[in-house]
Amino acid sequence: MNKYMKAAINEAYRGIKNREGGPFGAVIVKDGKIISRAHNQVLKNADPTCHGEMQAIRRAARKLGTHDLSGCEIYTTAEPCPMCLGGIMWANIDRVFYGCNTLDTESIGFRDKRFYEQTEKERAEFVTECDRDACLKLFGDYKNGNHEVY
Amino acid sequence: MNKYMKAAINEAYRGIKNREGGPFGAVIVKDGKIISRAHNQVLKNADPTCHGEMQAIRRAARKLGTHDLSGCEIYTTAEPCPMCLGGIMWANIDRVFYGCNTLDTESIGFRDKRFYEQTEKERAEFVTECDRDACLKLFGDYKNGNHEVY
Repeated sequence: MNKYMKAAINEAYRGIKNREGGPFGAVIVKDGKIISRAHNQVLKNADPTCHGEMQAIRRAARKLGTHDLSGCEIYTTAEPCPMCLGGIMWANIDRVFYGCNTLDTESIGFRDKRFYEQTEKERAEFVTECDRDACLKLFGDYKNGNHEVY
Repeated sequence: MNKYMKAAINEAYRGIKNREGGPFGAVIVKDGKIISRAHNQVLKNADPTCHGEMQAIRRAARKLGTHDLSGCEIYTTAEPCPMCLGGIMWANIDRVFYGCNTLDTESIGFRDKRFYEQTEKERAEFVTECDRDACLKLFGDYKNGNHEVY
């Protein structure tokens, strides 16, 4: 068994033992070493963003002192949801290894599938454009200020 | 102009003035009142998960003491990226109002499009299954433990 996945599973057990959240653990590896370990803490922290992967990313970034986790890999007990996959991509993580897939996660009651099943009509009712011109002015001011883009 | 979007824009200006991150502000509204305000702090916090929407969700959850933000709406200066949209959906936020769209965000240098443009082949190289059986055992143990599902 992969030793990093084993560490991710151990993290998940730690989390469910204390009822901190779902059975989701993750570790981030750089140059063969685990640089962060985390598990789902949505219930413990009363924070919907505290999935295992997100917590692992935050800890790794804090440890390395940068938002750029290039050269890192993440091992996670479940296929990342769109939020976590987005976080992984923004962090520039090189590769993702997951244990259970989205349907497995769905089978124990977590609502992963709805992200992929939203229809165009449902999405249009959910997400609406508003005051684009005022926001384009903001974007222009930003661009003219020679800010860093990442 | 929508007063909540105006507040989101003001947040964004606060963030770029101090070079905390990109021109992205967000506010969360419940029963007509703004319950949290935030802006992108990826650079300030050296944390890739600190998009404006994510920060606003975390603050609203802290304020209300729950991971469930049903009954809330979010106003954000840019169309949410997959990470933020995922966070919004996990938080059960009712509706999203955004200013600039994904192409606008791309036009000032942020790499939003790549999330949507990843090919099947690229994704297969990026995301790999590993030790599913061991993780299924974890999921079974979780399910048998009568844990809360959210």
